[in-house]
Order: sequence, then structure tokens, then C-alpha cells
Amino acid sequence: MQNTDLQTVLAPILGDDKKHSFRLVIGNKNYSSWSMRPWLVMKAFGVPFEEIYVPLYHPDSTQRISEYSLSGRVPVLLADELIVWDSLAICEYLAERFPSQNMWPESQAARATARSICAEMHSGLNQLRSAMPMNIRASFPGKGRTAGAQADIGRVGEIWEDCLSTYGAHRFLFGDFSIADAYFAPVVMRFKTYGVSLAPALQAYCERVEHHPAVSEWVKAAHEEKESIAKFDQFD
Amino acid sequence: MQNTDLQTVLAPILGDDKKHSFRLVIGNKNYSSWSMRPWLVMKAFGVPFEEIYVPLYHPDSTQRISEYSLSGRVPVLLADELIVWDSLAICEYLAERFPSQNMWPESQAARATARSICAEMHSGLNQLRSAMPMNIRASFPGKGRTAGAQADIGRVGEIWEDCLSTYGAHRFLFGDFSIADAYFAPVVMRFKTYGVSLAPALQAYCERVEHHPAVSEWVKAAHEEKESIAKFDQFD
Ligand SMILES: N[C@@H](CCC(=O)N[C@@H](CS)C(=O)NCC(=O)O)C(=O)O
Ligand SMILES: N[C@@H](CCC(=O)N[C@@H](CS)C(=O)NCC(=O)O)C(=O)O
Repeated sequence: MQNTDLQTVLAPILGDDKKHSFRLVIGNKNYSSWSMRPWLVMKAFGVPFEEIYVPLYHPDSTQRISEYSLSGRVPVLLADELIVWDSLAICEYLAERFPSQNMWPESQAARATARSICAEMHSGLNQLRSAMPMNIRASFPGKGRTAGAQADIGRVGEIWEDCLSTYGAHRFLFGDFSIADAYFAPVVMRFKTYGVSLAPALQAYCERVEHHPAVSEWVKAAHEEKESIAKFDQFD
Repeated sequence: MQNTDLQTVLAPILGDDKKHSFRLVIGNKNYSSWSMRPWLVMKAFGVPFEEIYVPLYHPDSTQRISEYSLSGRVPVLLADELIVWDSLAICEYLAERFPSQNMWPESQAARATARSICAEMHSGLNQLRSAMPMNIRASFPGKGRTAGAQADIGRVGEIWEDCLSTYGAHRFLFGDFSIADAYFAPVVMRFKTYGVSLAPALQAYCERVEHHPAVSEWVKAAHEEKESIAKFDQFD
């Protein structure tokens, strides 16, 4: 019976949530690094959702976001009756709701490290974020290399090297693709746009991230997106 | 038998971890808002730990922190062989390791909201954080009220009101003291130092936080601390 088959396929993913409904509010795929993270997690782990697109820096962006969340920011996850905002809280919510998916690494030590690097990214590495904003379509080789950005690039390299060698078996940061890779995917995008050169093992990691199906899908959509944000599209 | 009694008392807290060893690296209690958060969680939920104090902004602070974590920041939790850094990752680690303690609120909806507000605090409310740095011993009424700080104060009020009325039964943000209250405790400290006046329900919440035993203990130690950081001790 078709219905039963579908349920069998979806059961491990959806658990008890037969009548789930997930909607993810995101900004421009070309620019919105925070939106990218939970979107990748949902795609990579096969959680079905409807996408609500709010182009940023338009006259009505703030108004439109405020219909979903008083934080005034994207991403926002609408999970049935519940509103979850901020990329990290959304990822934790998803990880908890679909425990069999191992969105965080399975071992306690790897998971604690994964959360440490995501939290460090979430509240830090500000110089990299402000000097080299995400702009997937653009190519600005050598730009944005302030001293602070350079220091942050060094710290990212240190984190990646450490995780790939300790836990990653030189595939993704913790072996299989996890929330941690989704968290650093926008950094991979930046390194490409701004032409940051990396040690071979780190460059290979960036290419694995870029070729992950969820990342490819996001990048393709970023290229097809019509809206642009002038102030991020030029340098100098 | 004494030993058995002690084990009976500690068992629900320590779970399987008979030979646990937790050390928490923190900065000055008077100033280090990020250190305060996991410290409060560990005290409030009775997790025994050794405190490692690294006074900040001393010539050897960076060197001393780097002995524990390459992030160069406090807090850092040393849990047996594991290093967990960043206040939010530390709280998630503790919540996971002591599940019966309900460090996060018990209901899924409340927990998702608690994580949303903590993540928003963790990566945002920057204007409040920079214009009104935590300084428990000081009194700077009316200072630091930039437009950005004022907007952040408004947002904090909105968050507190919403949580206290929806989940908190007007006690702590989600009823019982949780990680979310620990996360906003440094904001309570700031509101006192900078004389921010609040609606009565929010003022009452601040007083409940201030009188929580773990918070009182931290504040008392901040007053007794010898080290001071000149640049935070004056205004103008
Ligand atoms: N800490 C937040 C940051 C979200 C954020 O800053 N989002 C940006 C877009 S990437 C935004 O909504 N900007 C719109 C605005 O500030 O008006 C998260 O992790 O979700
Ligand atoms: N996102 C980090 C922030 C930690 C942080 O900024 N800590 C400050 C003290 S409150 C620090 O270590 N400063 C020392 C320095 O920057 O050298 C966390 O939540 O733990």
C-alpha cells in the first residue's frame, strides 16, 4: 500500500510527528549566511519544509520579518505552533526533534567540541564576518584582508585542522556531515569569494563542503536569485 | 554508612559519573559576564567543580587562558579529559550530562524558546553589552544609554515579559531557575549598575535573580575581589 510505504520511508525521519509542518523563514541565499545554516541542516538530513523567502534590505524587510519573529532577524523556524529563532537554537531544536539523525556528532566528546566551535563562530569571528561578508556570486580576490580578518582566518584554520585530524578522519569536521559543517559552510563560501588560500587539507575540506548536495543546491539558487544588495556588491 | 549516604545524595546529580572531575576557568567575577553564566548553572544545579581564576587584562592573561583553550577566551570547562569552551556550549554540555536536573525547561516548547533567547543574547544585544559593560561593584546611574543600548534594553524587556507571562508564572523566565536565567543574570547586574528603571513585574524578576543563592554568592565574591580593571572602572 502506497501510504504505508511512504510512512515507512518517512518514519525514521519524522518520528512521532505525523502531522509536522515546518516553515523556514530565510533571507537572500546569496548573502544571508545565518539563513544558510539551518537550511543546510534541514536539507542534508531530509527534513521536509516550506521555505519563506524575505529579501533583505528592502523597504518592507523589517516589517515582513516581524510577522514571524520579534527578534527582527532571519532565520526563523515555524514548527507547527512553535516559533524558534536564531540559527543555533533552530539547529538544537532540530537535533532534539530528530535524534536518530545524528545532526550533532554521536560521541559525547565530538559533540561537545562541535558545540564549542559552533558557539565560538556564533558569537565571535566578527572581524572575518564584517570585513568579508558572504556574497556567493561575487569574486573579490585578496579583498577584505584586515589584520582582524586575517587573525580570524588563522583561527578558523586551526579549528578545522584540529577537528579534521582528531574526529573527522579528514572527511567532514566530525566524519559525517553535521551541524558543525553547516555552521562553517558560509565561511567556505567567503574563502572562495575572497580567494583565501589554504593548506591542501583545508582546501580539500572546502571542496567537500562545496560539493555536498545541500550546499550545491543553495549555491545554485543563490546564482539564480534576482535580488541584489548594492552595498555588498562592490568593494572599496 | 556515611559513604553510601553521600553517594545516595550525589547519585541523581552525578549519574554514572562517579569519578567526574570538573574545573571551570573563569575571569574576574566583577566583570566577566560570560564566565558568570556557566558558573551560575553549575552552582544552581549542584554540580561540584574546582574554580580556576584567571584575572583578565593582566600582562599574562592571554598566556594563562591559552594553557586551557586555543579560543583565547574564558569560560572554559575542563571535564575529565575534555575541553569545552564558550559559555553556551558549556551549558549544553552540562544539560546533556545531567539530564535529570532539567537545566533547560522541561517542555519542548519552553526549551525551544529558552534556547532562542539564549542564542539571541549570545550573538546579539551588542550595543547593550558594549555601552554598559558588566561591573557589579560600580554604580553608574543613567550612563551608557546610547540609542542602541536603549533599543536593546527594550528588546530584553520584551523577551522577559513574554517568557514570564507565557512560561514563567511570574517567577523565573520558565518557572524554575534555568540556563536562561543564568544567561540573563549579567543583564540584571547591568540594569542595577546603570540604574535602568523597569516595569514592576520586570523589576521583581530582577530582584528574584539577585536573591538566588548562586547569584548572591557570585556577587559577594565580586565585591571581595582584589583585582580591578581601570578602563571599566570609570565612565566618560
Ligand atoms: N544570531 C542570529 C543572527 C541573524 C542575523 O543577523 N540575520 C541577518 C541576515 S543574515 C538579518 O536578519 N538581518 C536583517 C536585519 O538586521 O534587519 C542567528 O544566528 O540567527
Ligand atoms: N562567546 C564567548 C565569549 C567569551 C568572552 O568574550 N570572554 C571574555 C571575558 S567575559 C574574555 O575571555 N576576554 C579575554 C580576551 O578577550 O582576551 C562565550 O560565550 O564564552
